Order: sequence, then structure tokens, then C-alpha cells
Amino acid sequence: MDRLTVEKTAAFLRENDGYLVLTHVRPDGDAHGSAAALVRILRSMGKTAYILYNPETTEKFLPVVSSLWAPADWQPDTVVSVDLASEGLFPSNAAPYAGRVALSIDHHPSNSGYAERLCLNGTRASCGEIICEIAAAAGIEPDVPTAEAVYIAVSTDTGCFAYANVTDNAFRTAARMAEAGADIAEWNRILFRTRSRRRIALEGMIYSGAEFYFGGRVAVITVTGDMMERSGCDENDMDDIAAIPGGIEGVVCGITLREMTSPTDCKVSVRTTQAVNASELCGLLGGGGHAMAAGASPKGMTVGEMKKILLEELERVLKGADGE
Amino acid sequence: MDRLTVEKTAAFLRENDGYLVLTHVRPDGDAHGSAAALVRILRSMGKTAYILYNPETTEKFLPVVSSLWAPADWQPDTVVSVDLASEGLFPSNAAPYAGRVALSIDHHPSNSGYAERLCLNGTRASCGEIICEIAAAAGIEPDVPTAEAVYIAVSTDTGCFAYANVTDNAFRTAARMAEAGADIAEWNRILFRTRSRRRIALEGMIYSGAEFYFGGRVAVITVTGDMMERSGCDENDMDDIAAIPGGIEGVVCGITLREMTSPTDCKVSVRTTQAVNASELCGLLGGGGHAMAAGASPKGMTVGEMKKILLEELERVLKGADGE
Repeated sequence: MDRLTVEKTAAFLRENDGYLVLTHVRPDGDAHGSAAALVRILRSMGKTAYILYNPETTEKFLPVVSSLWAPADWQPDTVVSVDLASEGLFPSNAAPYAGRVALSIDHHPSNSGYAERLCLNGTRASCGEIICEIAAAAGIEPDVPTAEAVYIAVSTDTGCFAYANVTDNAFRTAARMAEAGADIAEWNRILFRTRSRRRIALEGMIYSGAEFYFGGRVAVITVTGDMMERSGCDENDMDDIAAIPGGIEGVVCGITLREMTSPTDCKVSVRTTQAVNASELCGLLGGGGHAMAAGASPKGMTVGEMKKILLEELERVLKGADGE
Repeated sequence: MDRLTVEKTAAFLRENDGYLVLTHVRPDGDAHGSAAALVRILRSMGKTAYILYNPETTEKFLPVVSSLWAPADWQPDTVVSVDLASEGLFPSNAAPYAGRVALSIDHHPSNSGYAERLCLNGTRASCGEIICEIAAAAGIEPDVPTAEAVYIAVSTDTGCFAYANVTDNAFRTAARMAEAGADIAEWNRILFRTRSRRRIALEGMIYSGAEFYFGGRVAVITVTGDMMERSGCDENDMDDIAAIPGGIEGVVCGITLREMTSPTDCKVSVRTTQAVNASELCGLLGGGGHAMAAGASPKGMTVGEMKKILLEELERVLKGADGE
């Protein structure tokens, strides 16, 4: 596997043709925005380029990608992936391209190196920023749809610039896309300022049922199957649910419990400050993750049983932290 | 009144000394951030400079301004206001400075021209951006606390870059402040990613009680005195409440009804798309405002009475819009 700079990547894209761009399962704004921007940049180089249809594309991203999907019978010469860290994250219809990716453009330091060439910058908050740098290296000015695709990538991957991963480069990329004519106000409205009526109903139930422990240092929210049914929500409505309890003032450990297909098929997401190790906590339920964000999906347990185990451990941890 | 460019403003600030900086009533992030940044920039020019104490400063902004407040007995030579459109918006303790403001730095096109000199740029989303441009014109590089003050100004006035007023300059200013060392992740956490337990409780009640009319095109939320009491919320917890109903998918008119000191001392805030004129609607209750954001505080009416009048008019307006 060859590591390419953005300049060498621009040169590679100029030299080849017949591009198919792959995105990952459960595609997000960075996946869709990066793929759409790359295809548009390739076309402005005079290349033939398409995005591989992704069966999980959600409604709000359809206008960004649907006109760029590859015809069903089309055979690519050069397969490129964006924001796609490993072949394990290929959508099912991308399986024929395993082992055939000529270039992976990515910002995940964990990229497995499955492609022949890799253009990776792990310091970027979004893959879209790297696409933008490749365009600049190729001497291509983004048109309005390209600028909007890049904006969608960088704004969604930083939670509208509010997450801890935001950088000067993310802001600078957004500034350039605004200058290039992207309708920032309209995309912000679509992406960040609109919630579905279903989601409002679910948040009402979640907030009304929020529980606090240990003087408000631990917050627990629970999403039951019944709440999903009553609100009408499905997985498309669950963006950032796990961030809710950790975003409450004074909370050092935010726990989100969810019933999935049945009351004994549950999962938990944990977000913490440095006071609590989320990965160790989730380890008690057979899960894991990072020190400040982790999860678990133990088999055959109810949300009540999971909560009991977590709260018992937190009582021990937080007493230690306090010297109580 | 003289209009000054940022260059002339920088020259004026270099020529004078003994600065007192005024902020507006109900001071927000832009007021606090702009004032703190200006005082720090003046001090790095070797000047004596303070912010006039603002009795309404809320807790989260205290670390930004409290160390810069003027001593009680201190007499300024040069009074400067930031983000302050008219003398009617002076806090009560600023009354002695009416008619004595040497320079107003502002981004409100409605600035009344009460100061001797005015440095105004109505295209900026925040006054903080103008302070930043003045620093650049004066050849001063922001240090970390100055960069954080500017970031607080630009990020809060754009709702963390999500409002329709965000521009390429707002993003570029944020990029520069990140480069200058501002702790963007921490300020984002404080300003945008943390809600109080009180606020969560209130939002739970609001969402559970949200009402929809005319096929979901009108959303009404109501905040009663009882809800304020049960949640423990006060005015400090009410940021952006009026944006909630208009931020629901499919809603063309979002109505927020609030009981203030009693059930017959109420106010309404209306947010609309182009389908409904918010100002005309609020005119029915003796209020007014802009086409897409307006309000009213009719005397002696309950929230139920206000709602009835608004819904009757909306039935007429929306039938017309539909051709039903």
C-alpha cells in the first residue's frame, strides 16, 4: 500500500478515468458530501465518475447524491473509497469491489490499508476537508454544488462545529465553501435546525424520564420499545441520542439505555468526563470503547438489569473520586 | 457623528487612553466577548482599559469579564461602547455616560448614531468580528484570552454557526482564533453542549405538550408559570426557547406562548417561513416585528385567548396559501 500526498493524489486522479466512488455502511454527511464532491471534481477534470448506490442513504442526503449514482450495468476502471476505514464497512452491494480499491481517501487514523493507495490525514475532522485539499492541489475551484457537498461533510462531522474535533482547518474550509457560494443558511436549516415531530415527541418522553444519581453526577436516559412506537421514531431519528445525558450540567457520566428488538435485547452507550472510565464501565457488560465514550450490547439483559450493574460500579468509582 | 473605518478606529484607539467599555442590557456572548477582547487589545497597546460592570452578566460569562471590570471609583477619559445600538439599551449603571460615548463599535445597521464616532459594519454576524479587524489594523496579534473572547462573540451570535446570519467572515474569524490558541472545544462544551437539569426538565414538559394544527404546518408550545416553577427555570434558562416550534419539520409557523408574572400577563413569540407574515399575525395582538420573527405582549389576555385569535387568523391565511 502506497501513502500518497494530496498532490500525488491529484496527479493520480488526473491520470486515470472511469471512477466509481464507494461510501460506508450507515452513510453520514461526511460520506455523502465527500463522495459527491469528489465525483463533481473528477467530472470537472473531464472524467467519467459516479458514486456507487448506497442502500442506506437517508432522505435528507438524497438531493446530494442521487443524481450521481452509477448506472446499474456500468463497469468502472478505477475504484476509489472515501471516509471508509476498512472493507468490513463496505455496504453489501460493494462486496464485488473488495480487494479492488485503487485509492482510499480518509481521515480515520484506524484505516486498515485495504486499498492500493491511501491518502490519509488523521488530523482532519472530516474527509471532506481532504477532498477539498485535493481539489486545490489539482487547481480546481469548487462550483456551488461541490462547495455545498464539502460543507455538508465538514459541518456534519463536527456537529455544526460544536464537537471537540473541530479545528481551524474545519472553520477555514467552511469559510471557503461559503465564499464559493454554498447556501450555508439553507443547509444549516436542513441539517441542524430542523427536528422531526417524531423526534420532538421522543425527546419529550426521554427528558421527562431522565434519572439522576450521586448528586446529579450520573444521568440515565432510557429509550424503550414502547417509546419508539408511541413517538413513531425509527433508527433514522436517533442521531446523537447518546450525547443527551452527558450534555447535562454537572454530569460526569451519561448513560443511554435502549431496548432494541425486545426487552432483553438492549444496548447501552456511555459518555463520561475524565472522572469515569467509560470503557472499563462498559467492560462489565462485555462491551468497550474509548475512555470517554463506550458501549455494550449484553445478551439477554433488560435495561433495568444493566442499569443496576452500572450504578453499583459507579457508586464505588465516584465515592473513590470524592474521598467520601 | 463621524463614521470611522477600522483603520481610523485603530488610530483613534492608539491616540487616546483611559478607556471604559460599555455593554448592553441583557448582555449576551457578543457583548461580553467583544468588550473583553477590546479591553485586552487596548491593554496590549499599553492603555488603561476596563469594562463597566454589567449587573445582568450571567454566570457562564463571568470568567470572561469579571477580572476586567472597572474599579467603582475609577473615572474614564474615553468611553467606548460595543454591540450597543442605542442609549435606550444602556444598563442602568451606564446612565451617567449617556451623551458621553466617544466611539461606538457595532454591527447593528439600526445603530442610532448616539456616539461621537461610529465604526459600523452591518454585514458582520457579530461585533466581535469587527473588534478582531480593528486589532489586525492596529497590528496586534490576539493572545489566548483575547482569541477566546472573540470566539465567544462570533460563535454565540451565530448560534454556533447554525443561524442564517453566518458568513464566510464568521468562519474565517473562528479559524483565526483557533490558530491563535483559543480552546474551542472547551468553550463549545460550555456554550453549546451543556444544558442545565432545569432546562432538560422544562424541555420535557414543552415537547410533551407541543400542539400541531393544520396538518402540522403550525406548531404551538406553551410555557406556563407552573412549568417554570416545577422545572426550577428562570429567565437565564430560556435561551432560544422561541426557536423550538419553528424548528420542527414541516412547520411554517411556530408559536411560543409564555405566562410571565401571572396567567393574564403573557407574551407570544412567532417564527415563520415565507408562507406566513409573523409581524402581521402579532399585529392582531398589538405587537409586531419582522416578517419571519415577531412578538406581542397583550395586556390582560391568557395564553388560551391569544392562541384562539392566532389560530383563527392562521386558518384563514393557510387556506389561502393552499387554495383549499
